[in-house]
Amino acid sequence: MPQEPLAYSRSQREHYLHTLHDFLRIPSISTLPEAEPDIQRAAQWLADTMAGIGLDQVALMPTAGYPVVYGEWLGAGPEAPTLLFYGHYDVQPVDPVAEWLSPPFEPTVRNNQLFCRGASDDKGQVALVLAAVDSYLRTEGRLPVNLKVMIEGEEEIASPNLTAWVEQHKALLACDAVLICDSNILAEDLPLINHGTRGMAYLEVELQGPATDLHSGSFGGAVDNPFNVLVRILAQLQDGETRRVLIPGFYDRVAPPDAQEQRLLAQLPISDQVVQMQTGAPAVAGETGYTAAERLSVRPTLDIHGMPGGFTGKGGKTVIPAKAAAKVSMRLVPDQDPAEIAALFERAVKSLAPATVKVTVRTLGLARWSLVDLHAPAIQAAAQAYQAGFQAAPLFMRGGGTLPIVAEFQDTLGAPVVMMGFGLPDDNAHAPNEKLSLACFYRGIETVIHYLALLPEAMRKSGQ
Amino acid sequence: MPQEPLAYSRSQREHYLHTLHDFLRIPSISTLPEAEPDIQRAAQWLADTMAGIGLDQVALMPTAGYPVVYGEWLGAGPEAPTLLFYGHYDVQPVDPVAEWLSPPFEPTVRNNQLFCRGASDDKGQVALVLAAVDSYLRTEGRLPVNLKVMIEGEEEIASPNLTAWVEQHKALLACDAVLICDSNILAEDLPLINHGTRGMAYLEVELQGPATDLHSGSFGGAVDNPFNVLVRILAQLQDGETRRVLIPGFYDRVAPPDAQEQRLLAQLPISDQVVQMQTGAPAVAGETGYTAAERLSVRPTLDIHGMPGGFTGKGGKTVIPAKAAAKVSMRLVPDQDPAEIAALFERAVKSLAPATVKVTVRTLGLARWSLVDLHAPAIQAAAQAYQAGFQAAPLFMRGGGTLPIVAEFQDTLGAPVVMMGFGLPDDNAHAPNEKLSLACFYRGIETVIHYLALLPEAMRKSGQ
Repeated sequence: MPQEPLAYSRSQREHYLHTLHDFLRIPSISTLPEAEPDIQRAAQWLADTMAGIGLDQVALMPTAGYPVVYGEWLGAGPEAPTLLFYGHYDVQPVDPVAEWLSPPFEPTVRNNQLFCRGASDDKGQVALVLAAVDSYLRTEGRLPVNLKVMIEGEEEIASPNLTAWVEQHKALLACDAVLICDSNILAEDLPLINHGTRGMAYLEVELQGPATDLHSGSFGGAVDNPFNVLVRILAQLQDGETRRVLIPGFYDRVAPPDAQEQRLLAQLPISDQVVQMQTGAPAVAGETGYTAAERLSVRPTLDIHGMPGGFTGKGGKTVIPAKAAAKVSMRLVPDQDPAEIAALFERAVKSLAPATVKVTVRTLGLARWSLVDLHAPAIQAAAQAYQAGFQAAPLFMRGGGTLPIVAEFQDTLGAPVVMMGFGLPDDNAHAPNEKLSLACFYRGIETVIHYLALLPEAMRKSGQ
Repeated sequence: MPQEPLAYSRSQREHYLHTLHDFLRIPSISTLPEAEPDIQRAAQWLADTMAGIGLDQVALMPTAGYPVVYGEWLGAGPEAPTLLFYGHYDVQPVDPVAEWLSPPFEPTVRNNQLFCRGASDDKGQVALVLAAVDSYLRTEGRLPVNLKVMIEGEEEIASPNLTAWVEQHKALLACDAVLICDSNILAEDLPLINHGTRGMAYLEVELQGPATDLHSGSFGGAVDNPFNVLVRILAQLQDGETRRVLIPGFYDRVAPPDAQEQRLLAQLPISDQVVQMQTGAPAVAGETGYTAAERLSVRPTLDIHGMPGGFTGKGGKTVIPAKAAAKVSMRLVPDQDPAEIAALFERAVKSLAPATVKVTVRTLGLARWSLVDLHAPAIQAAAQAYQAGFQAAPLFMRGGGTLPIVAEFQDTLGAPVVMMGFGLPDDNAHAPNEKLSLACFYRGIETVIHYLALLPEAMRKSGQ
């Protein structure tokens, strides 16, 4: 038991929390071009903090987009395993801003929850790992593992430049395991290891009908309204009863879960009732023939995120808009191929469109799904660390979200990826009033301290 | 022939155009609460101008909303007919503002077209009537008719307070005919009299699913996305092949045009080809079994104007929005009842909604259709005036737009309503780059001068 680091981390909770506040105040929204100076500021803040706790070689390493902040501590010796920690310092947009109960970039604690954009996804989880490292280095003067830290700034825009960067720096990043803290557990006393992620194809469909907006009094009835056409097309992409996606070929490569996976799914305390309670929906529904746990992990989805165009202000405006658009993403599972799904989507949309509109389909993002070997020692050590940090054995579930880098790390570095998260399902990630449970933050620090201590022994036992 | 007023009006074209510029510069967008001071400013500008040309009793008359600007000239004597002129000084919003080639409230002449929000709908048409009156009064010192002028400020928000105001001021408004200049002709040499208007029911549907926005990675697949549900519901309101509205009961009261109407419809030079050319759509489509002219005048419609909610910014955001909404209007024809149609719409939407969403349907506006007796002397005088002003006999068509006050005037004042417009189908009313043809503006002034001259004789002949 790493008693000294644990005790020290408890004594420094206020300090670590205030350090996180400073990180959270920087509105590093990667999808907004105008936020570029803030992204750079967040990267610099992170580099200063990493150097401050004792990491070496700290640098803002350039990519074709925003920099990766890198640092390392390699003093554990050649026998000790090397752990690569990955996180991200960029955050989601904040709209609808009116729904925030406190300003989105002003860290505010209410009911032992820290509210701020990025609190859970992912600044809070990055901060707790750095706190664990700090506690170790301040007390023991060393870590039990060699540590490499890379924190990127483009995760929320699907990491367009990360694959190239990882391949370019393959030698620098060489490691025995990768740790990612960017996921949710099920409840404050129900830790969870994600042994996979869903992929994604995010597309935007735009229909152009008339050359300009028209007055619906002058032209209504004699031209196709692009929104009327668009809702018909979108409605035909998903069955209203079974919620099956109707894009031809969509399910062709979906692999059913194996027996082990089915046992793990059956253990999950996730049901329609739980989802309904967590979301506050009047009722829930999903793909016929699958449980809530399956729908959230091993089944693909199709979601419309917004429909730009026309008049959306207060009151009424009788316009037939020249253009109507929809932002649509599909979460993908093994063995669906994101580029193939994007092509199937585009073909389906175009085949459903009448001659009265011109269809443009743009790809906003593609990301691969991933699967991690449950039996890898780095994963088993994570299970022990959760037990120690939360006094509860973790459950295992493929994550419903998308972390494009997981498959990339496994392929390029040949190392298993450990997804040990500390968010909660009601953290409102990507939504107004995002928050982080302070209990999860503090337990997270201790769990990571345990993990740093447990990893060498687990790797040794397995002979890896 | 009123030679002096005509000659004077020609000499004053620049002056009348510049006066219109001043009117157009005031951004009197009635649907925007923040535009209230501008609406008041537009009303005051109008009152000053009406007093300036010699109208009496000019006043901003209060309503429960924005004021009606009233003025009169009653010096023609008890034997002369009394004409009530109606127009509006409010305008539509300007979004999408990026599509304007010149600033929306900066009058700009290009290619003999005056570009500005309100140029055609309706400030330009109000200005040309006032110019005609001015030309008469400056030259003859009197008008051939008694004239009452009422210009309202809430037409673009469906005139919520006008019915009450007209009923309250029934005596003040007593007249033999009503003139409205707020419609389009077919081309610069194809004048058109609208002998009817479509009604309207404008509704907003809002679906609430989850209590807050959700991350589609965390919850996608296990909850109904309100946008996915909404497109399914909306798609079921209109047949994708026939473009028939599928709301049960929608067509129950639609009266087929009579033989006279069918003859007039057959004379209209409106075809799918013309509509396609006017709108720039790749192809056009409408209700199966009806011609373009019928679809635009004697058939009802359903149009989606915009779908608020979710993420509509640049890039991608993977949100399952808590709410999704749609703004939908239906243009209505004899004998559909707007309130009944609104109720049928609400019932249909609610019956199509699954238990996973809460449905709210708000009525944003209801307006009655109207029909005018073609044989009324005031209409026949308008036909003669067009012939004199445009050197072309007008066609007759029920207007596709909505002027809620037409039915109200006919019922309350017992006077026929003459809809003599000077806009063109490509004027971009309600759209970016709204404009008015200067040729129409100048011909409009002369046509109204002719109308003032012709009306007394037409009324006398008919013994009215």
